Amino acid sequence: MSKRTEKTIVDIAEELNLSVSTVSRALNDNPNISARTKEKVKKMARKLGYRPNALAAGLRNNKSKTIGLIVPRISMFFPATISTIIQNKLQEYGYHLIICQSNDSYEQEIALVNTLYSARVDGLVVSTTLYTTDFSHFDIFRTNNIPVVFFDRVPKDYDVKVIKGDDYLGGYLATSHLIERGCRDIVHISGPLSCNLYVERVAGYKKALQQHQIPVRKNRLFYQELTRESAWQTCKKIFSQKPYPDGIFASNDTTAITVMEYCRTIKVKVPEELKIVGYSNDPRTEIISPPISSVDQYPAMMGERVVAALMELINSPTAATKFTPEIIPIQLLERESSAAPVKHGRKKK
Amino acid sequence: MSKRTEKTIVDIAEELNLSVSTVSRALNDNPNISARTKEKVKKMARKLGYRPNALAAGLRNNKSKTIGLIVPRISMFFPATISTIIQNKLQEYGYHLIICQSNDSYEQEIALVNTLYSARVDGLVVSTTLYTTDFSHFDIFRTNNIPVVFFDRVPKDYDVKVIKGDDYLGGYLATSHLIERGCRDIVHISGPLSCNLYVERVAGYKKALQQHQIPVRKNRLFYQELTRESAWQTCKKIFSQKPYPDGIFASNDTTAITVMEYCRTIKVKVPEELKIVGYSNDPRTEIISPPISSVDQYPAMMGERVVAALMELINSPTAATKFTPEIIPIQLLERESSAAPVKHGRKKK
Repeated sequence: MSKRTEKTIVDIAEELNLSVSTVSRALNDNPNISARTKEKVKKMARKLGYRPNALAAGLRNNKSKTIGLIVPRISMFFPATISTIIQNKLQEYGYHLIICQSNDSYEQEIALVNTLYSARVDGLVVSTTLYTTDFSHFDIFRTNNIPVVFFDRVPKDYDVKVIKGDDYLGGYLATSHLIERGCRDIVHISGPLSCNLYVERVAGYKKALQQHQIPVRKNRLFYQELTRESAWQTCKKIFSQKPYPDGIFASNDTTAITVMEYCRTIKVKVPEELKIVGYSNDPRTEIISPPISSVDQYPAMMGERVVAALMELINSPTAATKFTPEIIPIQLLERESSAAPVKHGRKKK
Repeated sequence: MSKRTEKTIVDIAEELNLSVSTVSRALNDNPNISARTKEKVKKMARKLGYRPNALAAGLRNNKSKTIGLIVPRISMFFPATISTIIQNKLQEYGYHLIICQSNDSYEQEIALVNTLYSARVDGLVVSTTLYTTDFSHFDIFRTNNIPVVFFDRVPKDYDVKVIKGDDYLGGYLATSHLIERGCRDIVHISGPLSCNLYVERVAGYKKALQQHQIPVRKNRLFYQELTRESAWQTCKKIFSQKPYPDGIFASNDTTAITVMEYCRTIKVKVPEELKIVGYSNDPRTEIISPPISSVDQYPAMMGERVVAALMELINSPTAATKFTPEIIPIQLLERESSAAPVKHGRKKK
């Protein structure tokens, strides 16, 4: 087992033959201490591995200047992109970001909340797992007045700051677009309804169908994890019997891409026989052939709003007695996977 | 400013009307304390937001059971994948992972090393920035006997545990493959030579050319950041004058994909007129059309070796007086982007 002896400012003072108060003032950038001494003290502090926390155990309103972020999976486009945007924006405020991924495990999420609390972050940003419906593990932050901001996958009935996309509109626009392009038998592959995103996208899907007098059929709705594996299994079910659907709206792009790959194996032509729309505007949707229509969630805007909200809470924590949720717009990007049939002109090769 | 009052075991004891020593033993899972009491104490500890560190400032050999990871960018396939593998493996040992990204900024990396040190991680795993050539910011871990393992992008002349891919072989195999497929004028798009990976891949590229009596030409070697933007600029240079090269070996897949997209705009056919090999086996190389040949770095194997090495160091830190670097194999995956010309049989559509 490694034995660490925590260094204090006394050690720094002894090493440099300075008084403890000089060292303390140097570390706190007191203007009465010369730049040369400050540099000498800070250099020695680094050398000895001095951590302010060790000494300050008694007087605890020091800031770590670190924000914790919990996302489901950093390998997914949307969380990875928004993490980087949040990090870059935080940097402008002098904050560092430490990122944890829950891997969509509720138990992991609980453990990570505690890990980040112990790491003394000054604030927490969270997009929850697919299965988080009890949010009491975040109480530790709330009761200790450490700001928490949720984004994208957010709590229901838990009084916190929430910034989310317009998922209802996203589901509505994606489905309406398929209908406009001639689809009448549209499958929706959704995530589990324990997660707010999917509840709202399903509601948007149903609304669009109803507006066009298309019946909502239970056997056209699939709920799953939206991974490649589960998408492949769902495709097997969808295409196990005819008639095949003429449109599929998938609640993420990994699923949309998998649907297209599956269609290739069973020789169903996209967009001629089946039209596809995904969600999140993952860059893969642009490079695949044909490119896949998707709903862009403006991650840059969402990330910037997350940081702005967090900074507001950090700077005036008492101001927020009632939190207003913020809705970030979405935009449907129409690509070839949902293109209208070519009626005139030269035939496609 | 938020005022936090740090809770101690005294607070827990008072709340529960228990003795301080009972609380302490309950928190430390002492077998003499009943399961019921332990649960009660731990529940209250969570409720009050008690952090063991606060009390233990004096006696500092407690473990945080947290490992810190610094990678260049989580939006890149290889770091994202290996982060998840490391996290899952660490979980088996009861450790949590907190992830930081340096965004390839040396200054950020320095700041993050200190952030993770302050967060009291029990170990550090690092893949450095493209520009890290001085490693003294990691001294704080070394001098305090906190294990550090470097992977992929690793230090030169800094005595630490290193686990890396066989980049020389990767460069050699990629280039040899292009030569075997008939290429004689092969461009290599490399990352900056401040980073070990690229030095070795360039050496492998040169070796393959020399073995086939093909001259190594300075104007066929490009050094850049391997982002989409820099790859596009490099393509402009490469294709600004004829003769065009007949093969391009790119030191990452983002660059290989960008080359292919650029070729589309100038109507250069891949693989007929130009063959392409990338590096890392990013999933995008498989879904793009035509699919791109790439060098697989076995991220699962590397991630598992990283965790194994870290656990060895954590469990017997004194054992490691001299560190032996470990080399993880690579594998060339041949896809259509470097396919041989079709000589017989039916013509491709």
